[in-house]
Amino acid sequence: MYQQGFVSSSLYSVINGERKRTVVSDMSKKLIYFDLKAIGEPLRYILHYGGIQFEDVRISYSEWATKKKMKSRLPFGKLPILVDGDRILNQSMAIARYLGRGLDLVPADPWEEAAVDAVILTLNDLRASTSPVFREQDAVKKEALKKELVDETIPFYFTRFQNILKENNGHIGKKLTWADFVFVGIIEFIEEFVQVKIQENYPAVKELVNKIHNLPGVKEHIANRK
Amino acid sequence: MYQQGFVSSSLYSVINGERKRTVVSDMSKKLIYFDLKAIGEPLRYILHYGGIQFEDVRISYSEWATKKKMKSRLPFGKLPILVDGDRILNQSMAIARYLGRGLDLVPADPWEEAAVDAVILTLNDLRASTSPVFREQDAVKKEALKKELVDETIPFYFTRFQNILKENNGHIGKKLTWADFVFVGIIEFIEEFVQVKIQENYPAVKELVNKIHNLPGVKEHIANRK
Repeated sequence: MYQQGFVSSSLYSVINGERKRTVVSDMSKKLIYFDLKAIGEPLRYILHYGGIQFEDVRISYSEWATKKKMKSRLPFGKLPILVDGDRILNQSMAIARYLGRGLDLVPADPWEEAAVDAVILTLNDLRASTSPVFREQDAVKKEALKKELVDETIPFYFTRFQNILKENNGHIGKKLTWADFVFVGIIEFIEEFVQVKIQENYPAVKELVNKIHNLPGVKEHIANRK
Repeated sequence: MYQQGFVSSSLYSVINGERKRTVVSDMSKKLIYFDLKAIGEPLRYILHYGGIQFEDVRISYSEWATKKKMKSRLPFGKLPILVDGDRILNQSMAIARYLGRGLDLVPADPWEEAAVDAVILTLNDLRASTSPVFREQDAVKKEALKKELVDETIPFYFTRFQNILKENNGHIGKKLTWADFVFVGIIEFIEEFVQVKIQENYPAVKELVNKIHNLPGVKEHIANRK
């Protein structure tokens, strides 16, 4: 369970290079992120699916806001990070692929490996393009941006994503890969943050979401999460 | 050399699945991009360094603007793409890693592989954050955005990038990887599009740019490019 004091001193010590002085667990892996699903949840899916022991460290916004020094010691001032012993890895997509490699969730064929990379990079571009909708405060402008997203952008991308799923028997690649977990997590993120419905219009997408949610480890995680 | 008519029919046929009818070369690989350096040039660096035979296909903006149907047949409507026989790969970073894997330019150690991924994903975030500066039409607003980029954003990122280079004997990873080529190309892109100077303030960055520019294949490409 998440404990404010522990998390704070643990992160501080990790990035301050004094980790050994405050270790309170035998587990060497920590995923450090905000107390959000967002771009952290796909990593939690992979970690739980893989049965990897890790500390699911959650930083509150209030804590983050007061920790300038802490931020400056992260690789590039951002979360999530994966901490493994003395090493820190940033960037959620790099973390997901890394975890995937250890779990046989990266395609063996280089072209196929690159093809799933390309899908996730494309979905990430789409995610980034939703930020203005999420941030816009003016209700009329927000609605106009959302309309463009719902009527044009999402259909453009998801028609293509759905075709890829159909060609691959329901997956991004020819078998289950790290990309399926990230794809599902990012779609849930877009749906929640921008308040748009994607799954109901793209049945192959909905099917993949359900498949990932019901994988061993992921299923238990979802049943237990807040 | 780039020929308008050939390019147009070649791209059309490739994405229309009729490639064999219009093949004019034995080379099976094409890099298709605009007639720009931007995010295509790092891929050209890798291809030339690797001695890979490829057609360096350039699409003019005027051609692109009139080719709605062509765009709709690209994987996600965007360039660059790598065409290899009947297969098309999109997303420059996925293409760079794919090419790198065939040229022993991906670290063998999974953590190290992920660490160079993370640097390039971070640089890509920085590149994306420069778009408002590039696009802003109001001179006063543009100057304010540029000032923030020059005084805050670039120092934040490049202090860290420079530390990574120093720790790795001048490279992003422990040896020459695809990430070095992309790092150099993206920096040149930011410098050119946003009109900011980066290399002169970060000597380790400048050194890596010079190193990549002088690699066999890359050197000849640079000497010959327009």
